[in-house]
Amino acid sequence: MNRTVFFVSESTGITAETLGHSLLTQFDSVHFEQVYMPYINTELRAKALTQRMQEAADRDGARPIVFATMLNEDIRNILKAGHCFYMELFEVFVGPLAEELGVMPSMQSGRSHAIIKPSFYTKRIEAINFAMANDDGIRPDNFERADVVLTGVSRSGKTPTCLYLAMHYGLRSANYPITEEDFERGDVPQILYDCKHKLFALTIDPQRLQLIREERRPGSTYASLKRCHDDIRIAQQMFKRLQVPVLNTTTQSIEEISSQIVKALKERQEGRPLELTEMGGAAGR
Amino acid sequence: MNRTVFFVSESTGITAETLGHSLLTQFDSVHFEQVYMPYINTELRAKALTQRMQEAADRDGARPIVFATMLNEDIRNILKAGHCFYMELFEVFVGPLAEELGVMPSMQSGRSHAIIKPSFYTKRIEAINFAMANDDGIRPDNFERADVVLTGVSRSGKTPTCLYLAMHYGLRSANYPITEEDFERGDVPQILYDCKHKLFALTIDPQRLQLIREERRPGSTYASLKRCHDDIRIAQQMFKRLQVPVLNTTTQSIEEISSQIVKALKERQEGRPLELTEMGGAAGR
Repeated sequence: MNRTVFFVSESTGITAETLGHSLLTQFDSVHFEQVYMPYINTELRAKALTQRMQEAADRDGARPIVFATMLNEDIRNILKAGHCFYMELFEVFVGPLAEELGVMPSMQSGRSHAIIKPSFYTKRIEAINFAMANDDGIRPDNFERADVVLTGVSRSGKTPTCLYLAMHYGLRSANYPITEEDFERGDVPQILYDCKHKLFALTIDPQRLQLIREERRPGSTYASLKRCHDDIRIAQQMFKRLQVPVLNTTTQSIEEISSQIVKALKERQEGRPLELTEMGGAAGR
Repeated sequence: MNRTVFFVSESTGITAETLGHSLLTQFDSVHFEQVYMPYINTELRAKALTQRMQEAADRDGARPIVFATMLNEDIRNILKAGHCFYMELFEVFVGPLAEELGVMPSMQSGRSHAIIKPSFYTKRIEAINFAMANDDGIRPDNFERADVVLTGVSRSGKTPTCLYLAMHYGLRSANYPITEEDFERGDVPQILYDCKHKLFALTIDPQRLQLIREERRPGSTYASLKRCHDDIRIAQQMFKRLQVPVLNTTTQSIEEISSQIVKALKERQEGRPLELTEMGGAAGR
């Protein structure tokens, strides 16, 4: 079964896309052809879109699904009148929320992913620059200025996780790859012990690590399964000595890892004991 | 007026947060204290949360707002029974969608930000690595392998935009900063003309540019307002000669810029003429 899905918005469409994607994951057996339609902010564009809806309906033999966040009623009505199953994400919630708050909504579109709070936006951009400048252990002397530090063996997922933490949460993120020297000494440098309160370790299954390294340096010792096994095993011993939470990037996305890190950081700040056991596995979900 | 808002989820909470944030932007006059509550996946945790709801209600003098995406009915009911205004994002839409599709929902949580499609996830991670390796014009010979290339003067927002395009859309993004040499010659290198079909230019207001550069190299000629004015003016002439779309990062977020770039790339692929005038401004919204 094939169904076309349109994510429609007057501005970026990120909200429609995020909630729409979440809902679609509930229906595995359907193949969704996803079409991304930001900036539908004139009646002309809305009308052109209803044309595409009809084409999709003819092609699929079923009307398309529309996830929309439209504030302009005229544009919304044009889309609604099209041949589609229309789900309006704002309409359902804005009214009840306004009643609860006792405040009228501004009905301005495009605000959720625009720069409304310049201070937080600037913080995010600065955090991205910080993550870029402090990738791969370039500047351990900067760890003091970091909000969070990640460690792990080469290719365990530190860089993308740092960038996500910076981009999404505005956290100044740095990372330290366990080096050849550390492996020889059997311990990480003191600077990691010093920033233990904001340190998280990433691990990965040796088989997966081998695949990633093999792509990078085909046929090398570095990419051999034995070396991957050894690296991970020794690294795990180091993490144990450090007593830091360990997260596994084999089965978890950077989004999942990051949200667990943010939760753990917050719990530390609030002085609540860290639930070490809860990290590092999708088992609890 | 102060109201506490909880974003609650059995997994990462990203969906609840995204839609919740969008809805809150409609109510400027209220100060929202935002609390992020991922991994509420046991009855015990849900009960502890209702305790926090009561504390927030006592503090604010009004019950907290809850944006939730809960699939487990037992946990959902515990939260609903708490002293809060509960908005369930899944409940409202999953039922009607199931009916429209004629398929039962899987009711598994935590799928929207997990690795469900390993191929797209891998593509995103590879795109992030590509963006890291092709930042700041390091490897113009790699532009051929890029999905999108950005250009602009130093500090115009190329790096964070490239990283967002990679992370969110899985696009292999590279960027080329206009160099001293280019300014002297009054033109960009041939390699940019060669990748015109995937090239976008970023610009920024000179005043804003000055602030950013001043932070980086205080008191330098590089950061002077005159130099910023000159750089932007000459760059604009280059962009005109290149005939590439120009986006302004002064007032637009990386999310907004990126969604416009993705839209334009798609329109080019589909052979539709590029609406140059529509880019680079929030005017149309």
